[in-house]
Amino acid sequence: MFVKHGMNQLSSSRNFTLSSSAVLRRQHFLIRSLAGGGHSNYCTLNRMQETNPLEADAENILRAITPSLDPTRHKGQAGKIAVIGGCREYTGAPYFAAISALKIGADLSHVFCTKDAAPVIKSYSPELIVHPILEESYSIGEGDRKYISGKVVAEVDKWLERFDCLVVGPGLGRDPFLLDCVSEIIKQARRLNVPIVVDGDGLFLVTNSIELVSGNSLAVLTPNVNEYKRLVQKVLNCEVNDQDAHGQLLSLSKRIGDVTILRKGKADLIADGEIVKSVSVYGSLRRCGGQGDILSGSVAVFLSWARQYIMAAEGNVAIRPTNPTVLGCIAGAALLRKAASLAFENRKRSTLTGDIIEYLGKSLEDICPAC
Amino acid sequence: MFVKHGMNQLSSSRNFTLSSSAVLRRQHFLIRSLAGGGHSNYCTLNRMQETNPLEADAENILRAITPSLDPTRHKGQAGKIAVIGGCREYTGAPYFAAISALKIGADLSHVFCTKDAAPVIKSYSPELIVHPILEESYSIGEGDRKYISGKVVAEVDKWLERFDCLVVGPGLGRDPFLLDCVSEIIKQARRLNVPIVVDGDGLFLVTNSIELVSGNSLAVLTPNVNEYKRLVQKVLNCEVNDQDAHGQLLSLSKRIGDVTILRKGKADLIADGEIVKSVSVYGSLRRCGGQGDILSGSVAVFLSWARQYIMAAEGNVAIRPTNPTVLGCIAGAALLRKAASLAFENRKRSTLTGDIIEYLGKSLEDICPAC
Repeated sequence: MFVKHGMNQLSSSRNFTLSSSAVLRRQHFLIRSLAGGGHSNYCTLNRMQETNPLEADAENILRAITPSLDPTRHKGQAGKIAVIGGCREYTGAPYFAAISALKIGADLSHVFCTKDAAPVIKSYSPELIVHPILEESYSIGEGDRKYISGKVVAEVDKWLERFDCLVVGPGLGRDPFLLDCVSEIIKQARRLNVPIVVDGDGLFLVTNSIELVSGNSLAVLTPNVNEYKRLVQKVLNCEVNDQDAHGQLLSLSKRIGDVTILRKGKADLIADGEIVKSVSVYGSLRRCGGQGDILSGSVAVFLSWARQYIMAAEGNVAIRPTNPTVLGCIAGAALLRKAASLAFENRKRSTLTGDIIEYLGKSLEDICPAC
Repeated sequence: MFVKHGMNQLSSSRNFTLSSSAVLRRQHFLIRSLAGGGHSNYCTLNRMQETNPLEADAENILRAITPSLDPTRHKGQAGKIAVIGGCREYTGAPYFAAISALKIGADLSHVFCTKDAAPVIKSYSPELIVHPILEESYSIGEGDRKYISGKVVAEVDKWLERFDCLVVGPGLGRDPFLLDCVSEIIKQARRLNVPIVVDGDGLFLVTNSIELVSGNSLAVLTPNVNEYKRLVQKVLNCEVNDQDAHGQLLSLSKRIGDVTILRKGKADLIADGEIVKSVSVYGSLRRCGGQGDILSGSVAVFLSWARQYIMAAEGNVAIRPTNPTVLGCIAGAALLRKAASLAFENRKRSTLTGDIIEYLGKSLEDICPAC
């Protein structure tokens, strides 16, 4: 499923010249950046790392894991992402997650949603592949539940192995029948070693059935304030302790068998049962709904890229930490913050999630030029 | 449900520095404006206040009630608005009201509409959360009315307490069954102390059943010329008297138990049973349909912010009047007029409602910079 970074570059002498010059440009850019040159965001970040040893080296991580564009690669190798979400009520959230993945640089982005939600999500953008296959209780008879559940899971299963990462939760809703089907999809993704990012109503599901993710080192949970509170209450059986935010997050991720948790907040905190990192590069003060969906789609892409990077490096990894789920969280959080900051500069209080998505590309390009 | 202005700013020294500098900037800007500096609109307004003692001090009100953006706030604290409207015929009106709320700075905007209207309203923008739950007579059997009515009201009721303000009416239509359900929703909002802005077909409903809003100090009615005429005929049992427009509006609002009325016209007049204020800052001569929907969504946001402001001030309120429903009307009317004026400068006769909405953000930013 994964293509190693740069592995295909050697297939012909012409390609080699082309891609090695692209690689050289990237390396020169990296060296300039590491030497302290470049733009103000990098300086800001450097200062943060001096004052806070837990602050992640987000920009260098973004540069390291973002794959070079080279002419030998073909469709799909820069990432195939799928979002499980979208129901009668919610259609914006899965769209935001799926389109963000494409805007960052993934090649293909799928959405698996209910029949009601599909035409609407399709209408937002022709760039997405939308599967109208989930079902909610109101649309099925009691006697059909088992048959329909099997059919839904089989439909997703046909595709599952092709995906580099699954995002479960944006606009999923809380219909019990639908959530039962999604539980089966989560189990199947785990059997196939497909990484999974869980957000929104997906977190409602796994908080109540923590065994769905417990011990899955390829799972990422991305709770906001309220979702984190419920997770701590359920798993640690206590209240959130902001005096020891890092320690408590570490305990929580350990208790869920070393899954990676990205706790969203003023600073985003990330733990995987071993380490804690923070991302606090300046974002925006606007708190419009939908930014969490951008984050889940972004983490999915960067997590996939980080896995490719780690596999290609064959033990010679130049960045720390080295857990691809943590790297994905750091990169996703930092990019969202930068894009939100640029959108806010332009739109101020009227900044909406769609405006932020329009700055994802520029934000990544500023940090890590495509060529 | 409400978060006091600035209450969270003191949670850490870093936050305090950040937010206090933002507050200081806002204060300096206010002082400059009060000293007569700043832009031409303010001068125009000053002249208006000299010539018309009833003219509201709209720009200072906008500055006072618009909350500072600060890093400790989270999603939802800048406002959660819901629009009840949207049926087989009308889909634009609820969209205009709901998207205007977001463009001004609310965090979340919901629409509760009929099943037919939902996919269309959703397709206008992924930023809205659209609930397809209202029903019209044509789609239900006579025997199902009671059951379906109960289900519709229960569906809205699940959400009601979370909202800072409800807008009832944009694109609601006049289907008798649907209006019966909406009557129940209005009663329930009142029981829960959720403020309500009534416009369009919502005014048709409450004009015929005035007890739905009578005596509700958290209710705002926003009639246009014809809606005002019907209201005067029904409640005061006479014709509109433009020779004593202020006095008649005051009588009308008194008679409906001190509800706030915003009478739209050449100058917008606002009364709450005690005082009358006018907003006549220059707008646009274009009278395209939909501007009333912008107004209802805007009043909802500013009313919520004014309530937060008044609660946080704890008796130390620097502006007059102090009724949050009146403040919301003044701010909403003034902002719409400014945005309409900017849109008209650019688009002239071809100005549409969507063009005006695009200027809401800039109009607020000109008066009250975000940072």
